Amino acid sequence: MAPGITAEKKTEDEQSSKDNLIHLSNPHLEKMKDDILYHFALGTSTHDFPALFGDVKFVCVGGSASRMKAFITYIAEELGLGSVGADYPNICAGTDRYAMYKVGPVLSVSHGMGIPSIAIMLHELIKLLYHSKCSNVTIIRIGTSGGIGLEPGSVVITSQSVDATFKPQFEQVILGKTVIRSTNLDDQLAKELMQCSKEIHQFNTVIGNTMCTLDFYEGQARLDGAICLYTEEEKMQYLKAAYDAGVRNIEMESSVFAAICNLSGVRAAVVCVTLLNRLEGDQISSSHDVLVEYQQRPLKLVGHFIKKCLGKV
Amino acid sequence: MAPGITAEKKTEDEQSSKDNLIHLSNPHLEKMKDDILYHFALGTSTHDFPALFGDVKFVCVGGSASRMKAFITYIAEELGLGSVGADYPNICAGTDRYAMYKVGPVLSVSHGMGIPSIAIMLHELIKLLYHSKCSNVTIIRIGTSGGIGLEPGSVVITSQSVDATFKPQFEQVILGKTVIRSTNLDDQLAKELMQCSKEIHQFNTVIGNTMCTLDFYEGQARLDGAICLYTEEEKMQYLKAAYDAGVRNIEMESSVFAAICNLSGVRAAVVCVTLLNRLEGDQISSSHDVLVEYQQRPLKLVGHFIKKCLGKV
Repeated sequence: MAPGITAEKKTEDEQSSKDNLIHLSNPHLEKMKDDILYHFALGTSTHDFPALFGDVKFVCVGGSASRMKAFITYIAEELGLGSVGADYPNICAGTDRYAMYKVGPVLSVSHGMGIPSIAIMLHELIKLLYHSKCSNVTIIRIGTSGGIGLEPGSVVITSQSVDATFKPQFEQVILGKTVIRSTNLDDQLAKELMQCSKEIHQFNTVIGNTMCTLDFYEGQARLDGAICLYTEEEKMQYLKAAYDAGVRNIEMESSVFAAICNLSGVRAAVVCVTLLNRLEGDQISSSHDVLVEYQQRPLKLVGHFIKKCLGKV
Repeated sequence: MAPGITAEKKTEDEQSSKDNLIHLSNPHLEKMKDDILYHFALGTSTHDFPALFGDVKFVCVGGSASRMKAFITYIAEELGLGSVGADYPNICAGTDRYAMYKVGPVLSVSHGMGIPSIAIMLHELIKLLYHSKCSNVTIIRIGTSGGIGLEPGSVVITSQSVDATFKPQFEQVILGKTVIRSTNLDDQLAKELMQCSKEIHQFNTVIGNTMCTLDFYEGQARLDGAICLYTEEEKMQYLKAAYDAGVRNIEMESSVFAAICNLSGVRAAVVCVTLLNRLEGDQISSSHDVLVEYQQRPLKLVGHFIKKCLGKV
């Protein structure tokens, strides 16, 4: 049984002592009468959060809204919770900033691209889970990335999220000053996910460091952006140094994801497929069908993990 | 007549000497046979860029895909180019990363939230304009923001985009090293836009500095995020210091927007409406209808500017 999934009924005291509740690192929120989660178009005075979300145990987040809708349809079928051809309404239909879908204990939320975009979503998600009195929640980012030294289509489970200088840290600017935050992720959860990949045995999966950058072109040493003032040799030197530092893929959200989940006491993992091998090139030139199949891999892996946690494998 | 809009036919030599072409700061691109703009789902080997986009003179960009669709419908009507009830297809329908619409010389593109998200879009937009052999292009960001010391609904035309320490600069990380880039915007264009606001005379508009942050909650001194470890006094001190440095609004995209447009030789402006006065609070709590009307203000202002440039006012 997965940590946090309790089959037996406990007394309230036992439960609160063992359950892992969401930790809000913000004393100001207690003073607020209402809380408007603006970018979700949800609010505590207009929505009954415990009724809507109180049973959530797994939150899967990813950049693309359509991929997160595909995930909820997939997981509903896998868990035997959905009817064939069912349509899952977007809970955040009042805005086009993010999309959110739910089936049973699984919430699926899009986060757009880049650290600022996922950070806005995570602040509001953590508050949503807190207001809903959720406990024992696992959050997993299922995304796409550029691989380093891996066959395209390989899946990377992040060991540490590192910055552009390969340090496992996230720089948060607060009131104009930079604060360093840890980007540790849950080792045990990464191992459980790796075990799931072995069980489904459909694609290459590794545990490795993930470099999180603020930019897709110059920030990831690509030669094909509108601006590039370095040479191919400098690019290769940088990517090889990243590989030597244990980096196996590059994406744009994992550092702040790890930092916010750490501070909120939520166990978290990052599972990304690699769409290309950056040691071989910069452009994502595989066919549409191949890329679509690659993007399903993290969904399958995490789907298997959730099924296993719920005793449905 | 607007700079760049030429009514008379010139000889080729005269034209090339006077036209302002897109400047690509990347010598590597010349060596590439094809160029796939992955996040637009467009490519030079699959799409005829000069035929599709060669006549573009104005590009309007904004965070929300639905707002950018609303803009193209609005501008089509204003310019007398659209039929009533016409639907404008999303040119980037092959992806859900960005949405793009076109009518006549106007392109409207969404960019999501935050510096990394708009940066990906701008790299691919600049390449799109280059491959399309566009000339004399003006790019305007029409967005939403938090105001400082302004009545909600006021519109700010950005004079300088400043960082969280109020410096007019953007830090770009390249191969792990930080490079400082200028965030200057076109003074003359800002003045022309201010004149347009006076002409339509419907809402308060100011020219002021815009602070561009990497985060919406802690990065903008909000007290209502999932994490907040500073006091209300510290928050107010920071926002007042920003005001004293000439900052009139805060958003999350203007610095890299200015930096990339500068390097590409494109004249650019940022026009954002303020949804609230941050000296009064943090939550965006105005009614849906009020916020919808606020969001139309930058569209109206820029719509008037384009009409005027094209001699249709």
